[in-house]
Amino acid sequence: MYRHVKNLQFESKPQKPDAVLAMKMQELVAGQFGEMTVMMQYLFQGWNCRIPGKYKDMILDIGTEEIGHVEMLSTMIARLLEGAPNETTEKAAAANPVLGAVLGGMNPQHAIVSGGGALPFNSQGVPWNTGYIVASGNLLTDFRSNVHAEAQSRLQTSRIYNMTDDPGVRDMLKFNLARDTFHQQQWLLGIEQLQEDGLADLIEDSNFENEDKIQDHTYWVFDETSAGPEGRWARGMTLVDEQEILVQNPPVPSEDTALLPPPDPKLYATYDGSQGRGKPGTATGATAQGIANVVKKVTGTD
Amino acid sequence: MYRHVKNLQFESKPQKPDAVLAMKMQELVAGQFGEMTVMMQYLFQGWNCRIPGKYKDMILDIGTEEIGHVEMLSTMIARLLEGAPNETTEKAAAANPVLGAVLGGMNPQHAIVSGGGALPFNSQGVPWNTGYIVASGNLLTDFRSNVHAEAQSRLQTSRIYNMTDDPGVRDMLKFNLARDTFHQQQWLLGIEQLQEDGLADLIEDSNFENEDKIQDHTYWVFDETSAGPEGRWARGMTLVDEQEILVQNPPVPSEDTALLPPPDPKLYATYDGSQGRGKPGTATGATAQGIANVVKKVTGTD
Amino acid sequence: MYRHVKNLQFESKPQKPDAVLAMKMQELVAGQFGEMTVMMQYLFQGWNCRIPGKYKDMILDIGTEEIGHVEMLSTMIARLLEGAPNETTEKAAAANPVLGAVLGGMNPQHAIVSGGGALPFNSQGVPWNTGYIVASGNLLTDFRSNVHAEAQSRLQTSRIYNMTDDPGVRDMLKFNLARDTFHQQQWLLGIEQLQEDGLADLIEDSNFENEDKIQDHTYWVFDETSAGPEGRWARGMTLVDEQEILVQNPPVPSEDTALLPPPDPKLYATYDGSQGRGKPGTATGATAQGIANVVKKVTGTD
Amino acid sequence: MYRHVKNLQFESKPQKPDAVLAMKMQELVAGQFGEMTVMMQYLFQGWNCRIPGKYKDMILDIGTEEIGHVEMLSTMIARLLEGAPNETTEKAAAANPVLGAVLGGMNPQHAIVSGGGALPFNSQGVPWNTGYIVASGNLLTDFRSNVHAEAQSRLQTSRIYNMTDDPGVRDMLKFNLARDTFHQQQWLLGIEQLQEDGLADLIEDSNFENEDKIQDHTYWVFDETSAGPEGRWARGMTLVDEQEILVQNPPVPSEDTALLPPPDPKLYATYDGSQGRGKPGTATGATAQGIANVVKKVTGTD
Amino acid sequence: MYRHVKNLQFESKPQKPDAVLAMKMQELVAGQFGEMTVMMQYLFQGWNCRIPGKYKDMILDIGTEEIGHVEMLSTMIARLLEGAPNETTEKAAAANPVLGAVLGGMNPQHAIVSGGGALPFNSQGVPWNTGYIVASGNLLTDFRSNVHAEAQSRLQTSRIYNMTDDPGVRDMLKFNLARDTFHQQQWLLGIEQLQEDGLADLIEDSNFENEDKIQDHTYWVFDETSAGPEGRWARGMTLVDEQEILVQNPPVPSEDTALLPPPDPKLYATYDGSQGRGKPGTATGATAQGIANVVKKVTGTD
Amino acid sequence: MYRHVKNLQFESKPQKPDAVLAMKMQELVAGQFGEMTVMMQYLFQGWNCRIPGKYKDMILDIGTEEIGHVEMLSTMIARLLEGAPNETTEKAAAANPVLGAVLGGMNPQHAIVSGGGALPFNSQGVPWNTGYIVASGNLLTDFRSNVHAEAQSRLQTSRIYNMTDDPGVRDMLKFNLARDTFHQQQWLLGIEQLQEDGLADLIEDSNFENEDKIQDHTYWVFDETSAGPEGRWARGMTLVDEQEILVQNPPVPSEDTALLPPPDPKLYATYDGSQGRGKPGTATGATAQGIANVVKKVTGTD
Repeated sequence: MYRHVKNLQFESKPQKPDAVLAMKMQELVAGQFGEMTVMMQYLFQGWNCRIPGKYKDMILDIGTEEIGHVEMLSTMIARLLEGAPNETTEKAAAANPVLGAVLGGMNPQHAIVSGGGALPFNSQGVPWNTGYIVASGNLLTDFRSNVHAEAQSRLQTSRIYNMTDDPGVRDMLKFNLARDTFHQQQWLLGIEQLQEDGLADLIEDSNFENEDKIQDHTYWVFDETSAGPEGRWARGMTLVDEQEILVQNPPVPSEDTALLPPPDPKLYATYDGSQGRGKPGTATGATAQGIANVVKKVTGTD
Repeated sequence: MYRHVKNLQFESKPQKPDAVLAMKMQELVAGQFGEMTVMMQYLFQGWNCRIPGKYKDMILDIGTEEIGHVEMLSTMIARLLEGAPNETTEKAAAANPVLGAVLGGMNPQHAIVSGGGALPFNSQGVPWNTGYIVASGNLLTDFRSNVHAEAQSRLQTSRIYNMTDDPGVRDMLKFNLARDTFHQQQWLLGIEQLQEDGLADLIEDSNFENEDKIQDHTYWVFDETSAGPEGRWARGMTLVDEQEILVQNPPVPSEDTALLPPPDPKLYATYDGSQGRGKPGTATGATAQGIANVVKKVTGTD
Repeated sequence: MYRHVKNLQFESKPQKPDAVLAMKMQELVAGQFGEMTVMMQYLFQGWNCRIPGKYKDMILDIGTEEIGHVEMLSTMIARLLEGAPNETTEKAAAANPVLGAVLGGMNPQHAIVSGGGALPFNSQGVPWNTGYIVASGNLLTDFRSNVHAEAQSRLQTSRIYNMTDDPGVRDMLKFNLARDTFHQQQWLLGIEQLQEDGLADLIEDSNFENEDKIQDHTYWVFDETSAGPEGRWARGMTLVDEQEILVQNPPVPSEDTALLPPPDPKLYATYDGSQGRGKPGTATGATAQGIANVVKKVTGTD
Repeated sequence: MYRHVKNLQFESKPQKPDAVLAMKMQELVAGQFGEMTVMMQYLFQGWNCRIPGKYKDMILDIGTEEIGHVEMLSTMIARLLEGAPNETTEKAAAANPVLGAVLGGMNPQHAIVSGGGALPFNSQGVPWNTGYIVASGNLLTDFRSNVHAEAQSRLQTSRIYNMTDDPGVRDMLKFNLARDTFHQQQWLLGIEQLQEDGLADLIEDSNFENEDKIQDHTYWVFDETSAGPEGRWARGMTLVDEQEILVQNPPVPSEDTALLPPPDPKLYATYDGSQGRGKPGTATGATAQGIANVVKKVTGTD
Repeated sequence: MYRHVKNLQFESKPQKPDAVLAMKMQELVAGQFGEMTVMMQYLFQGWNCRIPGKYKDMILDIGTEEIGHVEMLSTMIARLLEGAPNETTEKAAAANPVLGAVLGGMNPQHAIVSGGGALPFNSQGVPWNTGYIVASGNLLTDFRSNVHAEAQSRLQTSRIYNMTDDPGVRDMLKFNLARDTFHQQQWLLGIEQLQEDGLADLIEDSNFENEDKIQDHTYWVFDETSAGPEGRWARGMTLVDEQEILVQNPPVPSEDTALLPPPDPKLYATYDGSQGRGKPGTATGATAQGIANVVKKVTGTD
Repeated sequence: MYRHVKNLQFESKPQKPDAVLAMKMQELVAGQFGEMTVMMQYLFQGWNCRIPGKYKDMILDIGTEEIGHVEMLSTMIARLLEGAPNETTEKAAAANPVLGAVLGGMNPQHAIVSGGGALPFNSQGVPWNTGYIVASGNLLTDFRSNVHAEAQSRLQTSRIYNMTDDPGVRDMLKFNLARDTFHQQQWLLGIEQLQEDGLADLIEDSNFENEDKIQDHTYWVFDETSAGPEGRWARGMTLVDEQEILVQNPPVPSEDTALLPPPDPKLYATYDGSQGRGKPGTATGATAQGIANVVKKVTGTD
């Protein structure tokens, strides 16, 4: 259950309105790496977490903090839109061409759709969607996702920091930059903790015993002039399992030339008969064969 | 420029068709962490990379490899769909109820849309989109994204590995598991190399000098009973800048209660006048004020 | 700022796992009218609300409650997925065909993607997106949206209630049904309050003085045999402005046959010259004319 | 079946072209609350309506009218784009900086994609999708949706009305404003009619007998300083069932702390064993248990 | 303007309900090539068409017909869903396992969301969107799009025809197959007419005089063992401009190795300095240089 | 399997940076008809192709070429963004208003998201998705799709060609125009080859024997004043099967007025009882009836 406190985590007051900056800051609210992404990602990870105590609580602590970050940024955007032009854009431009240039970048949906408030869209008006987030149940892979999200989010915050001189906006972004610095480390430390607690290795390695034991330490070169093998990733030992990295150059493919079996005629896939007739020649038959295969598998009679 | 070789990187031959498994394997082709994601993510990162030589070449080597992985998986799916039921699903079910159960999971678009071939959609039929990928120009943040993508991808591959006993499918998945093991390390080693070459720190820290110097080492607790502070992320020193991590409990918010300024009347945002009249009271005026603010800022006369 | 309390608003414990029901309940988490929709809709409305006090606080009270509803439902789904089949679906089906039928409906992403937890997708695996929500700044229109969202949400909850006999699931749904009953009324009462406070009319009527004074009380009939005019909506007085509703039958269109002006030749729109030459005949000229029109408008010299 | 009449319902002739306004008006064609939304929403509701006569016919009358509204708006946009700049934007800007400012807002897809015609996208270029619409089969909930759509649509029309002085555009928008005024009332009157005919109550209340009888008249407060309880929604009687509204402050949660059961080991969800071993300890076993539960339920032997 | 006629273009009555078929037929309503696609594609093409008379009228005749096809298919789906299971799926499965198998394929949204009516989604529940359609203003390219849409639509209809024995469904599909046969030819004949009227060539060839005069008749081979050059497309004369097709094997790339210029330092793109310093070395400078370039271009002083 | 060659297929060097053009050229990378579309469409078609030899190889030759086209265009965009403004847009605008106008059109995501590189989005920032592509297994229908994609792509390239005078950009676009000219013909020649090889007719005609034999040569008129019947599509013989085209004017609909059966009461679809009671009157009964229908069908006892 959640509770609300009116006061923001950090103040969110621009010195002056700036509708163009408001448009850009939508990327930090609802872009691929906006605050909505980390908020919803951490909340789902926390709700799905199966370890009571420090892990689940930490994930939800940060997820809860991020709700407040969306609030902070949305408040900032609404304030940046104070007095934002609506009806008289053209007249303003006529009065002062410099302005026209700047006003050109205002997002019209800030007037038409949200009436001067923040939108749940990115800087180009694209709706946020949950295809951006992940909660896999596996904390190592999810912490890796979280490090990446915080890193990309911080980079975008930093780029936008450079786009304004407004001291109020910059103060809030200084706060956000610092939180992203801390949160990047928090998730890296989370990975350390998982390893210390014996809950994960450095990398995701489930079914480790079943994977191909050559391909897990081989670098393939796909460009004749590639300098790729010069990097650390192709020289020295692997980080897990300590094996000398191999370089496969040129790449040697398999014998499988990807020819496909004859199609079910009733699907009207174009076919010249070169792979033989459909087994055993009719759609019904092909289906029956497919079914028989499955039956054998299911009943274990194969 | 790219060239094609008919032979697959690894063979992609199931022992027997299995339309239900084909449906599940669509997740590995075109899900959030399918091969299309890493393929397009690495290609765009490579094309956008500004360092000639080992970095750019390595990124494109792997990106090129991944095109072949989409090809391998698509070929596998088309083969798993051999003899897949079309017209006579119901009759098959009548003949053998066990089968009916299994057949229930077939994706109808494998018949209706692709005619027995792979689809560019995930296991639930959702189209792949470029909102899944990132190429920021910053190699540290992008390598962090790549580690996460490989980790999530490997986890999903591993879960699907457990869903089949087909030795042909398993052979290919063993190959894929191993590549994901290697690629996770490759990107981690890439981060090591960036640090060795002086091109990045452990975390994204641009504008480091401007960030808040308390908030970059403070853990905030948002749940009274949180065990979050027990973890390594709230105890000991930060990884960069070596500072003792602080714990802020309870969270102390700012004085800013997020009240918004009066709206432009012409936007018809509901308002009770409690924040004063719009400045200076009409839409045109409010706009003019907003414009004047921007003009001063632009011309530096403020 | 938000805070978290570990205890759920209402308990969320199924008597027994049920993976098929878990799939259906995703609609209530992240469908068009799932809890994520009301949660994000109310939060954005509250953050954008320009009236301090009872309106803003009420909107945020409910928005905060809804975060907890997503948590309750996600917890329920994770519990319904306990022991959900992964590797051995086919064997289970072989052992008991009845089950196979039921199991057929499990969402494979509950295993592959979320590892047994809730997904931020609807019952068909479609990601949730912010195209579902609205925060217009105008409380009347937004309260109308909120009534609709609660009504649709309750209807879907009620339909799913009928799909299960599990007493634990039903208990939670009884709670949810009641909240949706209350919240529907809350938003209707909110509209009453807005009217009482002089902040809105029964309907959205900005620019009322400018609208066409016949078309605001005319019912048009577009089907010769339509019984539409028999309803209250075509008989008696309008609700606002008290006018006798007119019926226009048959519909009498304007004289405008929608012919388009000649195209800019450089856009290669197919054109037969029948509307005259492009003004004044070349792309540059057409552009210049377009520009001149705008200039005159902007500078007021027209 | 549908028929076409060349003449528009109302004329759609701007006095002068205006490419920037054309961009903004895309919101009215294909935004979340554009005419495509009401058109497709009403058509699907009408086609799915199970009451022959006045309800079905009224819904389809309006749905058919809305097809013509998309046509009107698309025609307007194509006319506003007459002579819209293509090749020589930069030169035009050089000749007259004021213009440059205004031209900056032109949507490049109006040239590149549609060749000077209307696009099926919103003002920011986002494609329209059917996630915006609903046809639930339940007329009360759908009429609630229709009121909301007309209200939001009218508000956006009204905001855009203020953005132009073009008398031709304004004439058409006056017509549209009036239709939205009438249609808001039409759906409200539809709800009156449903109640009069005994087909619905004021709110959606299916399974009314099963819902929690306290929670259906309780307002929960989630912010210590909330003024929410001052509003009509928290004082007095409910609209249905006439009960005194209760206020729950502070919120008292359940005893359920949302702990999750142990995971299936084969899903590799991170887990510390604190909730006991997986039942009965292996993936196969956990699956078998899950299946057994379902079997009992299905066969009624539980 | 549009009008409605209650009677369907063709009758739409299944002999018996079939919820699984209803799910599949959603592809024909709202899939990538469903009737919504051709309906909206033709309507936008017609509204945007700049030739009064036979072209515009023909496009709108067919577009109007297609509205009625969505209606026919939606009606069919609602009828196929008559008596579709809701509450008692599991009990039905227990009573008859064969059925369970078939029922497994029912789309739960047909109960939860649409209450037994058609959905505006495809067979996998994915919403329809306007990214599927095109109206370019150029009739040749749009007629090519229309041929493709009718061909894909007919193929999918034909595949679904094979999936049912229901005589009522088959009768409607026979009608649809025939319309798709006619419409494919209609658009091909439209291309003939465009050529006859001198409004288009066989292919889109605007700016023909500017295109590379070797690359317009060269086949490039990108696979050493490609049999591609054996086909008509690589042998003989081109269809337009009558030139002997050349085969370029092996492909000879340019000298351009795609190195990128140095980045603006303030964007934090990773860079090793190997391409020189940013011009002239600072972000402000780089920006100024970029601006100067544009200024020269705009003012023609370069 | 794929390999990479560093050198581009054609050089991709603008004379000068131009951030506004970069924004427009995103349409050619990742718009509906951008190079990503043909690249992924041809690759999936090739991988799914069931005819070894010239067809499969040709499709993959072109698909492989298209990967290189995305690379060329992405490289061009990164170069056009050299020195693109980041931090000091406003100052630049103040210094030179002309520029401000031009700069207004820059896509902020080129700074915020990609750090000066190409984005995988269209010119309006909309992510590319696989709903744009098709690979049906049927070569005739897919070649029709390919002709359409090349035609639309060429038209958009040609429009953008007119938007710039930069000789370097124009050189690359001349190359692209020529490839689109050739590729349009390639797919038309592919259709000729399919017919020559007996693998397809002029149009998609599977289940030809089952289609309605009147409707396959009838033009329906849906507008009383339609000039549609004047065109070749309504006069003369059909292209296949050589029949005189009939004109149906006015359209004569069926007797079916689209009334729907009574709903399952448990779905709460609004209903007045006019179609009789639900069969046989209860939800369970209606479900049982539906099930019985399916059972008879499956077991052939009907």
